[in-house]
Parts: sequence; structure tokens; C-alpha cells
Amino acid sequence: MRSEFEFIKRIKDTYGLGAVGDDCAVLPKDAEFDMVVTADMLVEDIDFRLEWTRAKFLGQKALAVSLSDVAAMGAEPKWAMLSIGVPERLWKSGFPDEFFDGYYRLSAKFSIEIVGGDVSRTTEKLVVDSIVAGDVPKGRAVLRSGAKPGDGIFVTGPLGGAAAGLVLLERGRRYSSTIPSWQKTLLLKQLQPLPSPFGVELRKMGATAMIDLSDGLSSDLAHLCEASRVGARISLENIPIERKISGLKLTDDEKFRLALSGGEDFELLFTIDPKKIPDDRNAQFHRIGTVTANPGIIELIAQDETTILEPKGYRHF
Amino acid sequence: MRSEFEFIKRIKDTYGLGAVGDDCAVLPKDAEFDMVVTADMLVEDIDFRLEWTRAKFLGQKALAVSLSDVAAMGAEPKWAMLSIGVPERLWKSGFPDEFFDGYYRLSAKFSIEIVGGDVSRTTEKLVVDSIVAGDVPKGRAVLRSGAKPGDGIFVTGPLGGAAAGLVLLERGRRYSSTIPSWQKTLLLKQLQPLPSPFGVELRKMGATAMIDLSDGLSSDLAHLCEASRVGARISLENIPIERKISGLKLTDDEKFRLALSGGEDFELLFTIDPKKIPDDRNAQFHRIGTVTANPGIIELIAQDETTILEPKGYRHF
Repeated sequence: MRSEFEFIKRIKDTYGLGAVGDDCAVLPKDAEFDMVVTADMLVEDIDFRLEWTRAKFLGQKALAVSLSDVAAMGAEPKWAMLSIGVPERLWKSGFPDEFFDGYYRLSAKFSIEIVGGDVSRTTEKLVVDSIVAGDVPKGRAVLRSGAKPGDGIFVTGPLGGAAAGLVLLERGRRYSSTIPSWQKTLLLKQLQPLPSPFGVELRKMGATAMIDLSDGLSSDLAHLCEASRVGARISLENIPIERKISGLKLTDDEKFRLALSGGEDFELLFTIDPKKIPDDRNAQFHRIGTVTANPGIIELIAQDETTILEPKGYRHF
Repeated sequence: MRSEFEFIKRIKDTYGLGAVGDDCAVLPKDAEFDMVVTADMLVEDIDFRLEWTRAKFLGQKALAVSLSDVAAMGAEPKWAMLSIGVPERLWKSGFPDEFFDGYYRLSAKFSIEIVGGDVSRTTEKLVVDSIVAGDVPKGRAVLRSGAKPGDGIFVTGPLGGAAAGLVLLERGRRYSSTIPSWQKTLLLKQLQPLPSPFGVELRKMGATAMIDLSDGLSSDLAHLCEASRVGARISLENIPIERKISGLKLTDDEKFRLALSGGEDFELLFTIDPKKIPDDRNAQFHRIGTVTANPGIIELIAQDETTILEPKGYRHF
């Protein structure tokens, strides 16, 4: 069956929708700025399970996924809209209010204005559409398509934490104040992620291409390479892994699988001339590889052996 | 139980969301223009029934409802985003493609660019969130809040057609090429409405307040009066009724009920100094009454008797 990606590609090609396909659309705003804008739909029992999360966590996550897209363009978020479809049973509870409170708190943290949206009913499931727009100096939005052979490939933080949180949820663990702290960390990475604060800094630093890690490193790197018509060589040993994962007592292979294919870490993946990373930022931005001139080929080096990586998006709740 | 209106009012007050509450949010764009932006969620079995409509009709309607909000601000639509959640059974059919085709055709008619959105899966029901933004000269957006006592109250076209189409659907009538033409007209008003083309003209003419007729004349007039802190006196005999309704063989009372409480006609309701309507536009813009200084009181004159109108939104599919 067709995937969403195939459907989007088909309508993009059929109708010539040039602005579609990056983390955000980039639109002219005024003499100084472009506007970037994104929409992200979250659907109950596809993107989240209510019995695994809390209204406040989900409200924050709804905004975080869109803020992450804005960060991935190197843009400053400015305003947001929220459309929400709520079933009767949740209207009767305090759910919508707590959800909105989580959404609002994150908006305040990023100083963005909530300007509108829509509230509807649904027959059964909760559905949310989160829209965020931001500003970026004219012509300076960081696209997926600017990576050049020889650029370094970097990520902004440790990976696999959100996927590890999902493993805990699947094992029946739920968030509460009494569980061990490493479990809290992993669960919150899944349930209440924060967008990366480094988007604007990386644009100013000279990032050539950027994407947020929502589907997982292997698929998002494939998207970036496809858009840039380049390839990549990455080294497994250099992929930073969330340290709290050790609590799960997984094999090394399983850990690397979470870091490579686990989605929703919302770190940024970017390419840049490595000389442009100041020494004092080396600890924050982890180099995992190098852009190559082999379009679409992603080589993975592990223990001096090279394999070709097939993009695997983690099918996440 | 709380209504959506109450929820929106509560969060607007609690969190001080000043931009929320009109047909669109108005945001500063550049030295010359403001941007208006709106989001509208349509949910299967709440806002539409798939067995009553066609994919192309629904795609067009999804965009039309948002274009109507932009028109109601006196703005020129510029770009759109579409988020759509599609259940498996519809992925397997050509539904998403035909839906998008209907959406695209209307976007082309209004020369607006489709810039992005999201595609997701759902477990059962179709859900659509339609986002449209437009431009309006700085400070000139026509709000709901500008009506002044003494202004005339006008609508841009005949009312009740969409509600009459709903009556036909409830009676089991479906759209096909072989049904009588009056039934086609009414069904298409419900299934495939068009946004009013008069928004910009009315702003230039000097409309003081405007709202699109989505919930129904009595509720939308109440929203406008509330925002403007005024009242209204309208005359039943002056409300233009869709002529094709006569095919339904309703009593006069029933017809007026459709025109007063039937939603989704997507005509514009506006207030203006009546002297500003040029003579050659008198036939297009129907005066139904006058703004009064009695906040929140809507008087309805019928056969020289005055009653107080209670706002009744039609609970529409």
C-alpha cells in the first residue's frame, strides 16, 4: 500500500507544489524576512495512546513537534495555531483544559503568540493539528537540500531516548513520580519532548542543510541526502546514544538500533563545513560522518566494516 | 455540557489570547499589509458524512470554509496548508487523490498557493484541517467588532440553501446527474459550497463589521453583535431566501427557519452605512435590518410584530 510519503510526492509532482517538502514551507514576508510555516497532525492510537500519556504532556508535545520543524529551518518561532478535535468522553473530563495548559506553557517558554485555530468534536478519537510559523532572514532558511560532499554530518544531542521510552511503555511502565529517575528521563523524552534550541545558532554558524530527527536518524538522513542529491558515510561508533538507555539492559546492537531507527528525539541533524564549528561547541554538536558524492547511498561504518544502510523509520506511537 | 464556544472563551480569557476570536487572526506582515490566517477542522460524522458526499466535493468544501473566513476579513487569500488524517479503508481507494483534486481545483480558481500541511493515518474516521492565509492593507481588516448603531445590516446572497440541501440528504436524496436541477442546486450548496467573492469589495466600500454565515444567521449575527457590543433589529420579510427551496414544499415558517438557523451558506453578513452601497450593488447586497444600541438584543420583526431572537445554530453535518 502507498505510504504518506508517496502520496505527498505524487501530489507535489502532479500539481507542481514547489513549496512542499521541507520541514517548513518558506514564504516571502517582508524586505528583511521570510516566513516559515508548518503543520503537524497527531492522531490518537496512531501517534499517541492516551493511556500512556497525560493531557499536559500531550499538549506540550503537540507544540514541540512543530517548533522542532521551525528550528530545523534555522528560524525563530513567532506564532502558533491549534486545531483540536475532541470526543465527548474527553470533553466531560478536564482533558481539553489540561491539554491546552501544556500547550500554552511551552508557547510561553518560546515567547510565541497563540493566534487561533479551531475546536471541533469527534465521534471517538482525539486529533490535533499544530501549526507554527517563524521568521528567518530573507533567503537564509536552512533547507534539506544544501548539503555538499565533504561537509561534516552532525547531530545536536544523544539519540534513542524517545524510542527507549517507548520500549518502557510497551513493557507496561507508566510515568509517575515514584519510578526510578532513569525511567522518568526516558519516558519524558517520548511523552514530553522539547524542540532543539540550536536551530538559529546553527544557521548563523553556516549549516548547509538541516532536518529534525522525527522519523529516526536513518530515514531523516535519507531524506536530507535525497533532497541534496548526495550520499553519506556515517560511523556507528560516533553516534551519541542517550546514556539512560543503559538501564534497559539491551545488547549493543539493540541500543544502536534505537539510536539509528528510533524516531521522535527531535534533535537536529545538520551538515556543515566542520571548520565552522567553534571549539567550544564541539561537545554539544556530535559529528557522526561526512557527506559523499554518491547520491542516495548511506554507508554505515561499524568496526571497520562498511554496510549500506536501509532507511528504517520507527513506527512510533 | 460545555460547548466549544465556552471552551474557547475560557482559554482566551485565562491566557489573554487577544488575537483569538474573529474569523481569522490578524498579524502584522510588512509595512503595507497585515496577514490574516485561519484554521478549520472538519471531522467525519460530525461535520460531514462520507455516504452523503463525494471526495472531490469534500476537498473543495475543506478549502471553501477557510477561504470564506478570509473573505469575511476583507482580505485577499494567498496560500493554504492542508492536514489530513485518512483511515486505511480510504487509503486503499482513490479517495485521497480525488479529495486533493477537489481541493486543488478551488485553490487554482482563487490563485492561491498550496504550501504544505501534513498527511497522517487514523484508525477509523477521516479528519481534515484546512489552513488559509491572506493579505489585507495594514489596519484595514474588517473585524466582527466594528458595527455602529445606525449601520445597515446586509447579507451577500440568499440563505437557507445549504440547510435545504441537508434536508434532502436526510430524506435520503443523493447527488447524481439524473436528479432534478433544483435538487442538484440545493445539494451542491451543502456539499460543495463556494466562498463569497465579495469580501475585498465590501472592505473597500466601507463595511464596518463582517462575519461569514457558517453557523447560521441568528448565531452569526449574535456573534457580530456581541463583538461589537451592539444589538440588531432585522425584518423577517427582508431576509433573502434561496428560491430553489420552494421545491421542498415547506411552510413559510419552515423556510424562514432554514434561512435564520441553517448554517453553511457561506454568504457574508456585514454592517455598513447604507449610503455607502452604490445603487448598482443594491440587488446583490440585501439589507435585512439595522444595528441598534441595545447590546446583545436581536429583535426580529415579522408582520409588524417584534420578537426577541434566540440564536440557534443549526447542528449540521
